[in-house]
Amino acid sequence: MLATLSSDGHANILFTLFIIFASAKILAEIFERLKQPAVVGEILAGVLIGPSVLALVKSSEVTSALSEIGVILLLFTVGLEVHPSSLLKVGKRAMLVALAGVILPFFAGWGFLTLWGEPTIEAVFLGAALVATSVGITARVLASMNQLSSEASQIIMAAAVIDDILGLLVLSGVSSFAKGNVNFIELATTALLSVGFVLFMVFVGARVMKKSRPHFEKLRMNHSFFIVAMLLCFGLSWLANIVGVAAIIGAFLAGMALSEASEEGSLRTQADSVMEFMVPFFLVGIGLQLDLSVFKESSVLLLSCLVTIIAIATKLIGCGLAAWPLGKSNALRIGIGMVPRGEVGIIVAQIGLSLGVLNSSLYGVIVFMAVATTLVTPPFLKILFRNK
Amino acid sequence: MLATLSSDGHANILFTLFIIFASAKILAEIFERLKQPAVVGEILAGVLIGPSVLALVKSSEVTSALSEIGVILLLFTVGLEVHPSSLLKVGKRAMLVALAGVILPFFAGWGFLTLWGEPTIEAVFLGAALVATSVGITARVLASMNQLSSEASQIIMAAAVIDDILGLLVLSGVSSFAKGNVNFIELATTALLSVGFVLFMVFVGARVMKKSRPHFEKLRMNHSFFIVAMLLCFGLSWLANIVGVAAIIGAFLAGMALSEASEEGSLRTQADSVMEFMVPFFLVGIGLQLDLSVFKESSVLLLSCLVTIIAIATKLIGCGLAAWPLGKSNALRIGIGMVPRGEVGIIVAQIGLSLGVLNSSLYGVIVFMAVATTLVTPPFLKILFRNK
Repeated sequence: MLATLSSDGHANILFTLFIIFASAKILAEIFERLKQPAVVGEILAGVLIGPSVLALVKSSEVTSALSEIGVILLLFTVGLEVHPSSLLKVGKRAMLVALAGVILPFFAGWGFLTLWGEPTIEAVFLGAALVATSVGITARVLASMNQLSSEASQIIMAAAVIDDILGLLVLSGVSSFAKGNVNFIELATTALLSVGFVLFMVFVGARVMKKSRPHFEKLRMNHSFFIVAMLLCFGLSWLANIVGVAAIIGAFLAGMALSEASEEGSLRTQADSVMEFMVPFFLVGIGLQLDLSVFKESSVLLLSCLVTIIAIATKLIGCGLAAWPLGKSNALRIGIGMVPRGEVGIIVAQIGLSLGVLNSSLYGVIVFMAVATTLVTPPFLKILFRNK
Repeated sequence: MLATLSSDGHANILFTLFIIFASAKILAEIFERLKQPAVVGEILAGVLIGPSVLALVKSSEVTSALSEIGVILLLFTVGLEVHPSSLLKVGKRAMLVALAGVILPFFAGWGFLTLWGEPTIEAVFLGAALVATSVGITARVLASMNQLSSEASQIIMAAAVIDDILGLLVLSGVSSFAKGNVNFIELATTALLSVGFVLFMVFVGARVMKKSRPHFEKLRMNHSFFIVAMLLCFGLSWLANIVGVAAIIGAFLAGMALSEASEEGSLRTQADSVMEFMVPFFLVGIGLQLDLSVFKESSVLLLSCLVTIIAIATKLIGCGLAAWPLGKSNALRIGIGMVPRGEVGIIVAQIGLSLGVLNSSLYGVIVFMAVATTLVTPPFLKILFRNK
C-alpha cells in the first residue's frame, strides 16, 4: 500500500535494485556452470533486462551512478593488489604497448569510416572511440583467476593507465577539432596535468599512505582505515576526473597507493565485499546501454560488425606486436587483454552525441562495438591465462 | 578534460559521492571526539552540505536511491543479530508498546493541529505522520554500543515492526479518507497481507534459510552465501513494499531469517562492510531533506517546534508507559528508542504532498519534526544504555 501511495519512483528503485542484482547473479551462475566467464553472463543480464529484450529496467541516472560506483570499486580493489614498483618495472614495455594500441585503432578507424563514405569529422571521432580501453573487465577476469601478479597482467594494467591518458589527449584534440578551435596550449596543459597526477600518485602516493596508516588508525570512528580508504577512492576518482583522466584511473591509483599499507589488516576483505556487492551494477549497466533497435537497418548492423572486427584486430595486433619480445603467449595475452572498450567507449560515444558529431546510428555502432569487444574478451582471457 | 567534455552529470556524481562520504565521516569523527553519537554528526553533515547551508549537494533520485540502499543494508545487518525466537519472546510487550506508540501520537497530533486552526484533513494527516517510527537510527546507535541483544533493544525492534504495520494501516485509512473513498475491504486486505508476510518470515523464514545454506554454498559463483543473502535482502525489501510494509521491514526480516545461518562464516563481516560503506548515504540523505527556508515565517518555526515536542512526548509517554512493568530504566530506554521518525516520517510527508493534503509549510513542519526527533534521540540513547 505504501508502494502505491508513495511516488512510483520509490517502489521502482527497489524493483530495479532487485532485478539487476538477481539477473546478474543468475546468469553468472549459469555461465560458471557452462565453464564460461561470469562477467559475460552479468553483462548479458543487462542486455536481457534492458530496453531491447524484456524492457524491465532502463538506463537512468540511478543505474549510471550505481554502475559508476561499481567500476570505481572494481579498479580500486585491483589497485590494492598492484605495487607501484612492479608497475614501474614494466613501464617501458607498457608505454610501447599503449602507444601501439592507440595509434593503430585510431588511424584504422578513421581510414575505414572514410572509405565507408562518412565525413571526416565522424571518421576521426570513430578513430578516437576505438582508442579507449576499459581495463575493468580484463582486471575482473584476471583477479578471479588470481593472475593479477603475472607479468602480462602488470603490463596490461600499466598500459591501460597510459592508454587512458593518450586516449584522453586524442579525444580532446578530436573534440576541439569538431568544435572548430584546436587550442594547443590547453591540450598541453591537460597532458601535463594528467601525467603529473599519475606520476605523483605512483611515486609519492604509496609512501605517504604507508606512513599515514598509524595516524588513520588513531581516528575514533569505527573501521577507520577502511573509511579513509573509501574516502581516498572517491576523492581520487573525482580529482582524476577534474584533472582530465577517467575516474577509474583515479580509483586504481588510490588502491595502488594503499597496496603496501593494506597487506595487513582487514582492508582488502572489506573492500572486496563492497566491490562484490556493487560490481553487478557496473556489469549490468554496460548491457543496459545496448539498444538493438538501431540495428533494424541491415547496413547499420553490417557496419557495427565491421567496426567491432577492426576494434578487436587493431588492439590485438598493435598491443600484441609491441609485446612480442615477451614471447608469443604473453603477446597474445596482452593483446587480448587490451581489447574491451566497455564503459569508456560508451562515454566517448556519449560525448560524440552531445557534441553533435555522431548521429544516433553511429552512436549505436560505437556502443555495439564497446559491448561486443567486452563480451568477446573474457573467454579468450580464461583460455590464455589458464595455460600458465 | 573528460569531465568538461562529458555530461556534467558524470562529474557531478563523483563530486556528490565524495562530498557526501567525506562530510559524513569528518563530522562523525568530530562528534566521536566530543563524545557525541556519530550518527548525529552524519545527519548534520547532510544539513550542512544541503540546500539550506552550503548548497553543495541537493537531494536527487541518485541520493535517494543511495540513501535507500543504505537504510536497507542497515536494517538487514541489524536483523542478522536478532533471532526470531527472542523477538517472539517479547512479542506481547512489544505489541502493547507499539499500540500505545501509535494511538497517543495519532490523536495528539490530530487534536493539536485542530486546536491550531487547521482543517480536519490536514490535522488527521499530521497525526498519521507522527505515528511513523524510523528504527534505523536507534538500531545504529544500539549496534555501535553492542546493545542489540538487550531486552529493551529486542522490544524496540519488535515494536518497530508492529508499529510499521499499524502506521501503514493508519496512513492507508487517512489517505483514502483524504481521497474521499474509504474502502474497508482494501484496508483489511492490506492488513492481512502485511501481517501474513511478517508472520511467515518470522516463523518459516529462518528455518528455510538454515536448511538451505548448504545448497547455497554449493553454487559455483564466488561468495555465494553473501550473494544469496544480498539477493534475499533486496528481494524482501521489494516484496515488503508491494505487500505494503516499509522496505526496511523486509530487509530486517531478511536479516533475521539469516540470523542463525550466519553465525558461522564470513557473511556478517561482509554484510557489515557493505553496510558501513552505504550507511553514510542514508544518514546524510536525511539531513539533505531539511530545507530551512520554509522557516522564514516565525509561525512555521513555532509550529515545527511544538509539533516536534508533541512527537517526542507522545512516543516517550506512550511507549514508556506500556513498557513500565519492565522497570523505569527499561521504560525510558524503550520510550526514547521509539522517538526518531527519520526517513519514514519524511516519506509520509511526501505522500501528503503528492495527495495535495499538505501545503509546503506543513510539509516543512513534518520534515523538520522527522529530522529533529532523529537528531535528539542518539545522545539520550547513549546515556541510557551506557548505565547498564
